[in-house]
Amino acid sequence: MASDEREIRTVHSIWSDAVNAGDLARLLTLVAEDVVFLTPGQAPSDREGFSSNFMAAHQQMRICCASELEEVVVVGEVAYTRSRDALSVTARGGGEATQFAGYRITIYRRQPDGRWLLARDAHTLSPDLQD
Amino acid sequence: MASDEREIRTVHSIWSDAVNAGDLARLLTLVAEDVVFLTPGQAPSDREGFSSNFMAAHQQMRICCASELEEVVVVGEVAYTRSRDALSVTARGGGEATQFAGYRITIYRRQPDGRWLLARDAHTLSPDLQD
Repeated sequence: MASDEREIRTVHSIWSDAVNAGDLARLLTLVAEDVVFLTPGQAPSDREGFSSNFMAAHQQMRICCASELEEVVVVGEVAYTRSRDALSVTARGGGEATQFAGYRITIYRRQPDGRWLLARDAHTLSPDLQD
Repeated sequence: MASDEREIRTVHSIWSDAVNAGDLARLLTLVAEDVVFLTPGQAPSDREGFSSNFMAAHQQMRICCASELEEVVVVGEVAYTRSRDALSVTARGGGEATQFAGYRITIYRRQPDGRWLLARDAHTLSPDLQD
């Protein structure tokens, strides 16, 4: 496996771990300054919007995400990945978990120092009706 | 504007027109053999799945989509776009239109003959609650 693909797989893995740990500072080291996140039913969010949404969500809920890469394609200084995602959300006050399932396309850009940063992300997560 | 970007903007425009015209044959000239479409609440679809979904939808509904490009980024033989989309769907039997709104990330790949084909697509369209 080429080193760029390995690096992107590592970023993808760290991302899920940091989401589950509620580690916003770690997540922000992985995203480009001009990052854009697209989420069903919401306005697009930038770095600041992502940060406030993430903090608010973690204050109210326990979040557990899992993401399986189905494709990693590197073309020069840009790469895209496709993953199958699952998300379980439980109110901190208690109650049953809500399950979400979907897929995700992420675009990464290689920085001048060689790091790969998440630049664009669109997911299709919606309530998992199979549960 | 560079010629690659112009070409991608043209493909994007033809795409919307062909969706609204129900012109599946035209759409299939614009997608890569291994295309993958990601849609909230549905399994990913390939060329065949897209075709059958599109035909079934057009038989049952009048479809009117509009898509405004917010970003076109070309890096060598790959490009990604981000667009703001709206969709209006009306049952052919009559009744009120249902409005959907969302955003889309599309990945295009340049072919050896210079054409740009749609290779990956994820959208976040969901019922527009502002209506």
